[in-house]
Amino acid sequence: MPENLSVPLAALDAADRALVDGVLARQLRPLAKTITLIESQRDDHKARARAVLEALLPSTGRAMRVGISGVPGVGKSTFIEALGLYLIEQGLRVAVLAVDPSSSVTGGSILGDKTRMEQLSQNTAAFIRPSPSACSLGGVAEKTRETMLVCEAAGFDVVIVETVGVGQSETAVAGMTDIFCLLQLPNAGDDLQAIKKGIMEIADLIVINKADIDPSAAMRAKSQIKTALHMLRPMSPNWTVPVLTLSALKQDGIAEFWQQVMEYRAVLTKSGEFDAKRRHQALAWMWDMIDAGLRSRFRQHPQVKHELPQLAQAVEAGSTTPSAAALRLLGYMN
Amino acid sequence: MPENLSVPLAALDAADRALVDGVLARQLRPLAKTITLIESQRDDHKARARAVLEALLPSTGRAMRVGISGVPGVGKSTFIEALGLYLIEQGLRVAVLAVDPSSSVTGGSILGDKTRMEQLSQNTAAFIRPSPSACSLGGVAEKTRETMLVCEAAGFDVVIVETVGVGQSETAVAGMTDIFCLLQLPNAGDDLQAIKKGIMEIADLIVINKADIDPSAAMRAKSQIKTALHMLRPMSPNWTVPVLTLSALKQDGIAEFWQQVMEYRAVLTKSGEFDAKRRHQALAWMWDMIDAGLRSRFRQHPQVKHELPQLAQAVEAGSTTPSAAALRLLGYMN
Repeated sequence: MPENLSVPLAALDAADRALVDGVLARQLRPLAKTITLIESQRDDHKARARAVLEALLPSTGRAMRVGISGVPGVGKSTFIEALGLYLIEQGLRVAVLAVDPSSSVTGGSILGDKTRMEQLSQNTAAFIRPSPSACSLGGVAEKTRETMLVCEAAGFDVVIVETVGVGQSETAVAGMTDIFCLLQLPNAGDDLQAIKKGIMEIADLIVINKADIDPSAAMRAKSQIKTALHMLRPMSPNWTVPVLTLSALKQDGIAEFWQQVMEYRAVLTKSGEFDAKRRHQALAWMWDMIDAGLRSRFRQHPQVKHELPQLAQAVEAGSTTPSAAALRLLGYMN
Repeated sequence: MPENLSVPLAALDAADRALVDGVLARQLRPLAKTITLIESQRDDHKARARAVLEALLPSTGRAMRVGISGVPGVGKSTFIEALGLYLIEQGLRVAVLAVDPSSSVTGGSILGDKTRMEQLSQNTAAFIRPSPSACSLGGVAEKTRETMLVCEAAGFDVVIVETVGVGQSETAVAGMTDIFCLLQLPNAGDDLQAIKKGIMEIADLIVINKADIDPSAAMRAKSQIKTALHMLRPMSPNWTVPVLTLSALKQDGIAEFWQQVMEYRAVLTKSGEFDAKRRHQALAWMWDMIDAGLRSRFRQHPQVKHELPQLAQAVEAGSTTPSAAALRLLGYMN
């Protein structure tokens, strides 16, 4: 980027320089402190976080980013613990993050309690961080994405981002990871209605967990899901979404899962789609932030604030057209 | 709407008053002229169109709005002609519009040639209008939605909005109609992959056309589609998406199709969802226009115009973060 276009950064003072150096030296304390800085709502912290992030940026991008979703009870924690321990056995370092937009309200339903992944959390090659709290999904997702970059700079080879299906959180996680994996229960039939609209369509890999409990039900579910997937146009012309059955509890099928993730990376890297997806994600992220910023300014304009509720009501009631209302409100932004 | 919040309208001069009166009197010439005014890109025409629309507004909202989509070759024209003629037989007046975002480039692939619906286009109870040309899908959809309102004011009982699956055009059409119908070919198996991601999920009704050619293939397709639908959470708790087989060419199954549309309206009207959907659509429309307006102003800012290409490139290349780029560009909007 030409020098004259660089964003004016807060000066990287000694303390922040120490954070950057500590992260790059793969030290856990500076890592945790940097993430806390990123999650802070204070304006001075935001400026410092931006400066630290920019300094770390050249050291990011080397991890495999894996999104994991599935309804509560599907066994996400058990799966992530089994996967994490397997990866550590292979000599890899693993970071586990979460996007849980309900965490602001409820205090967080996932990863809030590290005892849920007891073995993994005690392993020095693993780093587990619960979902940030923020007022909006956009805020949560933004902070998680930046935390992911910090983890990459700290040399983690795999970053796992977990989410429960709250709001549009799956879309947000799919938009920040290289591969999005959906965990399913083996109950065939009605329970599969729990597959939320649109989620199966953004999955790159589907896992039927707890297959040991009722193997024949798991096979039925697999066949049903394959049929459903068959009706959807694939995201990539080079990748047919695999449906795997496994048991995270018995650590059965974890190696095969990871083999598929690696296969996915190899195929999409070869076709150029892997890098294209990352470039596209970064750009889409920028536009999301721009749109959010523009809308936030719009809503804060005193005249808009004053008239929006009544105009929205008039549009709903059909007494004015959406375009007339939009034009009137936009007029104040000149 | 309180008087002080009304949007300042262009004065309704004698010519425009004549247009309004003509539309309300159900005359086709003023109807066509009003639509031409709506489709015009000229600023003075836009102001006049807004005034005419506002004057027509109290007379809108009474038509059943039916969206029809399906890949080229599925038989949309034949289906719409058969449906239109059936509805006219029932004493109804039918308007057929189109949303084809490719029309700006190609001159339009649907409804451009009225001979495709020869009988319907010659019937005085029918009004067929090809897709407007505009530079963006948003523009095309906006004009079509406003045209739909004009048709309603002109007393049409049913407005059919046709689309081919270009870009997000199906979502746009589903967002302006009461019921969104997806036409499918009876080829089971591989050809069903042509269902675009997310389209089946917004369908309220699925029609397998050309069922006469291979009835057993049509039944297999029906069963496959039903299985796939079963995996999706329904849009309404009160409506299970029906899958119908029919032959538009032989005019076989058209009455059953319309019966399902009426059933849909009855069920959702009873539950309150019908009106709620329209209110929600109007509000979403307003926000779409606001977002588009904000982004357009943003893009026109000289500094943004100057720096956006390079910053976007830097974000794609990973040499700056999306947030830093967004913050820098948003800074110019103060």
